[in-house]
Amino acid sequence: MRAQIIDGKSIAARMRGTTRAEAEELAAMGWAPRLVSVSVGETAAAELYVRNQGRAAAQAGVEFETRCYPEAISLEQLSGVLAGLNADPRVNGIIIQRPLPAHIPVKALQKAVHPLKDVEGMHPASIGNIVYNDLALGPCTAVAAVEILKTLPLKPEGLVVTVIGHSEIVGKPIAFLMMGLGATVTVCHHMTRSVPMHSRAADAVFVAVGKPGLVTGEMIKPGAALIDIGINRIETPEGDRTVGDADFDSCAEVAGWITPVPGGVGPVTVSVLMQNAVLATRMQMEHYRATYTGAAE
Amino acid sequence: MRAQIIDGKSIAARMRGTTRAEAEELAAMGWAPRLVSVSVGETAAAELYVRNQGRAAAQAGVEFETRCYPEAISLEQLSGVLAGLNADPRVNGIIIQRPLPAHIPVKALQKAVHPLKDVEGMHPASIGNIVYNDLALGPCTAVAAVEILKTLPLKPEGLVVTVIGHSEIVGKPIAFLMMGLGATVTVCHHMTRSVPMHSRAADAVFVAVGKPGLVTGEMIKPGAALIDIGINRIETPEGDRTVGDADFDSCAEVAGWITPVPGGVGPVTVSVLMQNAVLATRMQMEHYRATYTGAAE
Repeated sequence: MRAQIIDGKSIAARMRGTTRAEAEELAAMGWAPRLVSVSVGETAAAELYVRNQGRAAAQAGVEFETRCYPEAISLEQLSGVLAGLNADPRVNGIIIQRPLPAHIPVKALQKAVHPLKDVEGMHPASIGNIVYNDLALGPCTAVAAVEILKTLPLKPEGLVVTVIGHSEIVGKPIAFLMMGLGATVTVCHHMTRSVPMHSRAADAVFVAVGKPGLVTGEMIKPGAALIDIGINRIETPEGDRTVGDADFDSCAEVAGWITPVPGGVGPVTVSVLMQNAVLATRMQMEHYRATYTGAAE
Repeated sequence: MRAQIIDGKSIAARMRGTTRAEAEELAAMGWAPRLVSVSVGETAAAELYVRNQGRAAAQAGVEFETRCYPEAISLEQLSGVLAGLNADPRVNGIIIQRPLPAHIPVKALQKAVHPLKDVEGMHPASIGNIVYNDLALGPCTAVAAVEILKTLPLKPEGLVVTVIGHSEIVGKPIAFLMMGLGATVTVCHHMTRSVPMHSRAADAVFVAVGKPGLVTGEMIKPGAALIDIGINRIETPEGDRTVGDADFDSCAEVAGWITPVPGGVGPVTVSVLMQNAVLATRMQMEHYRATYTGAAE
């Protein structure tokens, strides 16, 4: 095997350390960052996720409160809950846990979170601010993938990047974030005629599709970085296993760096959520100060 | 010469016809679309632009009012003007004419326009909605370039597209709009190592940089479409001339279709502004109706 395996857990731990220092600095000014997690109904998958977030918050010095609403809650009631959280000065960030019941459209809820409290970076205004290269709350998974790339000894300016997958919250935001850093970015998807043609030309490949084994070694340029964002549950003779979108073994023979799944992008994503909590709190503090000191926007 | 020259003026005229029919339909329901143009100081360049917009508005059945404020107006006063226009039910769209005096930051003003009245498609939320593939008010020049491509007999699904220039309001939005249509898009810019490598692979090239002669025939795949968004004023022995970013003569030998400058993207851009005026009015009507019929968002 030739590739260096990227250790997502240690990157995540380092980020939480930085976030903790910033959280303490904010707390000392009366702005201790505080997240509220909103989940609906009982879902085991979400519970594991929420527990992970709670642990990461503790490590990052961010307060974390969970609220669980009954399965039968209406969209109107839930919108009311969000309006209340938006208006509550003790809440700096709102996380909407998925899955949601079928009668609750996730997009309507995401738009109901105030952009300054949108720690998941899902509001259209958050996405637009990223396009504008403004310091903004970015979608956590996309930011995590880019943060991982930034730890490698690759200069992003002029870097040839191929993103496989063009979802609104992962593939596309990775593309603008990398463009913002100066990379030349191509976005491929299910309608692309030849994904290998684009992936083989790339110094770095991001894959976020949700298909195990989609990217194989012969699709990667020798020495390139491969950031695997897929999380797929597969059955094997030895029991269920979690794998990414890359065929790890063949890709690791060719790539220069590769993220494992699990242990790659996943842990960093939770750290980005905490980083966003601190950033959101800082933006709210600045907004508050501007209001009371009469400074122009 | 091999390329077919794309007639922007006739595309623009056709669009205005469609917009006019929609504007009349809205007017019949009490929602005649109405734009307000805001300019600051006396600038000859802006005046020509505003006159063009007024003429296009008349053709598209959109009411058009111009307001000109003195050079010395402060950002606070101008923000107040915009707040008034946002709150005025007789105003469906607000255009901020550029250039603005140095003491007025254009981005702060663009954010002060309500997203539902943002007919120029510049608000971060408008940009984000495009990323989300929502029916939204898009930046006029980017939408115009894509509308032109859509008139050609090229299937956008799987089309290999290279965008040269990654500005927030032209290059990047063209990239998402084309991705939304199913194209495989690469965005190149001043940090790209080899622009010709990417442009030569493309079925369609969009160029929006602002450098005359940047794209030459040998950078284009034979038969490809070339959409030239550049508008540059150059001096020639015969006097000043307006040219695009493409070296027209060499590109026209190779490309299958090419937009002239002037007469290509420019006229279509003004028609998109009118199309946005109608779309904005329709969104405001729907928002109003939802409010008074109590329908959920």
